[in-house]
Amino acid sequence: MLPGVKLDLSLPVGELTAQLVDVESVSGSEGPLADAIEGALRECGHLTVERDGNAVVARTDLGRPQRVALAGHIDTVPIAGNVPSRIDDGLLYGCGTSDMKSGVAIQLKLAAEVIAPAVDVTYVFYDCEEVEADRNGLLRLSRNSPASLAADFAILLEPTGGVVEGGCQGTLRAEVRATGERAHSARAWMGSNAIHDAAGILEVLRAYQAREPVVDGLTFREGLSAVGISGGVAGNVIPDECIVTVNYRFAPDRSTEQAAEHVRELFGGWEVVVTDAAGGARPGLHGPAASSFAAAVGGTPRAKLGWTDVARFSELGVPAVNYGPGDPLLAHSRAEHAELSAIAGCEATMRTWLAG
Amino acid sequence: MLPGVKLDLSLPVGELTAQLVDVESVSGSEGPLADAIEGALRECGHLTVERDGNAVVARTDLGRPQRVALAGHIDTVPIAGNVPSRIDDGLLYGCGTSDMKSGVAIQLKLAAEVIAPAVDVTYVFYDCEEVEADRNGLLRLSRNSPASLAADFAILLEPTGGVVEGGCQGTLRAEVRATGERAHSARAWMGSNAIHDAAGILEVLRAYQAREPVVDGLTFREGLSAVGISGGVAGNVIPDECIVTVNYRFAPDRSTEQAAEHVRELFGGWEVVVTDAAGGARPGLHGPAASSFAAAVGGTPRAKLGWTDVARFSELGVPAVNYGPGDPLLAHSRAEHAELSAIAGCEATMRTWLAG
Repeated sequence: MLPGVKLDLSLPVGELTAQLVDVESVSGSEGPLADAIEGALRECGHLTVERDGNAVVARTDLGRPQRVALAGHIDTVPIAGNVPSRIDDGLLYGCGTSDMKSGVAIQLKLAAEVIAPAVDVTYVFYDCEEVEADRNGLLRLSRNSPASLAADFAILLEPTGGVVEGGCQGTLRAEVRATGERAHSARAWMGSNAIHDAAGILEVLRAYQAREPVVDGLTFREGLSAVGISGGVAGNVIPDECIVTVNYRFAPDRSTEQAAEHVRELFGGWEVVVTDAAGGARPGLHGPAASSFAAAVGGTPRAKLGWTDVARFSELGVPAVNYGPGDPLLAHSRAEHAELSAIAGCEATMRTWLAG
Repeated sequence: MLPGVKLDLSLPVGELTAQLVDVESVSGSEGPLADAIEGALRECGHLTVERDGNAVVARTDLGRPQRVALAGHIDTVPIAGNVPSRIDDGLLYGCGTSDMKSGVAIQLKLAAEVIAPAVDVTYVFYDCEEVEADRNGLLRLSRNSPASLAADFAILLEPTGGVVEGGCQGTLRAEVRATGERAHSARAWMGSNAIHDAAGILEVLRAYQAREPVVDGLTFREGLSAVGISGGVAGNVIPDECIVTVNYRFAPDRSTEQAAEHVRELFGGWEVVVTDAAGGARPGLHGPAASSFAAAVGGTPRAKLGWTDVARFSELGVPAVNYGPGDPLLAHSRAEHAELSAIAGCEATMRTWLAG
C-alpha cells in the first residue's frame, strides 16, 4: 500500500487549496484525496466522521437548535496540463482551484478550527459530481444514509464569485428525431432527407423566446439550446435519420414533467425522447439560518442558473444555496484559477457567521 | 498455400455468376477471385493475360481496326448474410449478383468463347471499386499501364437493367461549417450556437432547385443533399462548430472546378471545404463502335446519374457507357439478386454484337 497523502489543515486556506489541487482527484479516482480528508478530520476530536465510498461526512453534535450542512464535491474534470498548482500574482492556478477545491479547503478549515459553532454543522465531502448523475456521491449518500444529510439549511460551496446564489434551474435533455427514407444520393428524389427535415427543428430553436420568471424574489433565465446533432449514413446515401439533442434549462417554478411537456409541445412535429432530466430548486432563502447567512454575506442574492446539487438537498426538504469563492466562468477551463484573497474572504465570512 | 478456386467458364452464365458470388471478394480481399480469373483466362490460348495487383487484363490481338474494352470490378460491398448464393424462381440471390458479378460472368464467357470477335477486345477485371477512390484498381491500372486500357470505346458492365446508360454525373463532397462560441448551456446567451446557425445551411439545401440539363442528347438530373451533419461538445455546452457534409451530383457539362464554385457560391455565408470530387463523363455515344453497340442493344439510351468508372475511361480519352444485367436499385442491399434470364439476355446481345 502506498503511503497516503497527509493534509495540513493548519495551513492558510489558499495554501491548503493548493495542497488539495495537487492530489489529483478526477471523477472516479478520488480515493487518495478522500483518504487524506478522512484522515485529517479523524484527528479532530470534536467531530464524528463517517465514510461512504469516496464520500466523507463529519459532524458536530453540540445539541444546537439548528443544523447547517456545508457541502462540496472533491472530484474534478480531467486534468488539462494544469496540475500541480502554481501561484502567480495572487492567483492560484490549477485544475479544481475554482471548481471547487477552494470551497473544500474552506470546509476543512472551518471543520478543524470552529470547534464550538453557534449551529451544529455537517461537513459533506463527496465524489463524482462532474460525471453522470447516477454516479453522484451526494445522490448515493442521500440513498444510503439520508439522515446524515438532514439539516435546516445547506450551503454548497460551488463557485459563485462570493455571491449567494439561490436554488438552481432544472435541466432536461431530449433527442428530437427527424426521419426520412434512404436513397442513393445520385437519385436523391427517390428518398426523403432527414437532415433537410431537421431544418424545421433548428428553426424552432432559433425562434424560441426564453422565459425569465421571478421565483421567490429571484429572477431566473431559461434557455433552450441544441447541444448536439448527428445524422448521416455514408457519403453517397440520403440519410433516414437526424437527431438533434436539445437541452432545456428551466426555472424552478416548473417541474421536470412540465418541462418535458413543454419540449414535446414545441417539437410536436417530430419524435421527442427525453433522455435525462433533473428538477431545479427554489431559492431556499426563507428560513432563519438562510436569512442570517445571506445577511452575513451581504450584497444581493441572485438566482443560480446552472443545475447544482442544491437540488438534491431540496429534494430531501433541506433549503439550500450556492456560495463559494470560485469563479463559475473559469470552471473546467485549462486556465482555471482562483483569487487567494477571495478564498480567504469567503472563509472569514463563513467563520464569523458560524461562530455566531 | 491453399488450393485455389477453379472457375468453369463452360458453365451457363447464370451458374458462372453463382460460382463467382460464392468466392467472397469484399474490397481489399479480392486475391482468391483474381487468382481464379487469371488462372481461367490463362487457359485460353487466344488471349494475352496480364496481372496488376488484384486486377487482371486479358486481350485479343487480331489486328482489328477498332478495339473495345469490356470492364468490370470484381469486389463487392461487405457480405450481409447473403453468401453463398441461392437460386429461387429464376432469381439468383447473393452479394454481388447485381453489382456486378453477373457482368463479370458475361465478360468471362465472352473472353473464353468469342475467339474471333469483329473488333479487338480488352477484358478488364479490377479490384476496390466499392471503396475510397484512391484504392480503385482501374485508377491504379490507368497509372501503371494506361496503354493496357487504350480503346476506341469502353463498356462498363455495371448494373443498368440492360439499358445503355451514357456517361455519368460527377460527384463532389464538401463540408459546410457553421461556427459559434462555446458557453455553458445554462448561460446560453453568453455564447453563440453553431448548430442553431446551421439552420441556414439546411434552408439553402431545402430551397435548392436542381438542374436537369440535356448533354449530348441525354437528360441528366442533378442533386444537392446533406449526407452528414455533426456538432456538439457535451450535453451542457453551447457548441462552437457544426459541420454539414453535402454531396453535389452534377451533370457532365460542368467540371469539378465549376461544381466546387457553385457550392461555394450557394453557401457564401459559411466556410466551405471541398473534401473530394470526381468529374462526370459525357455520354460517349458518338463513335462508330458506340453507335453500333447502342443499335445492337436497342431501346433508348439514358443518362447515368450515379458516378461510375466510365469517368476514368473518359479521362483517358476513351468514350464509355454503362451496360449490364444487374438492377442498380438492388445494389448493396441484403436482398441483392439478379434475374437469370436478364443475365443470359445481356450475354447474348453482347456476344452477337462482338461477333459482328
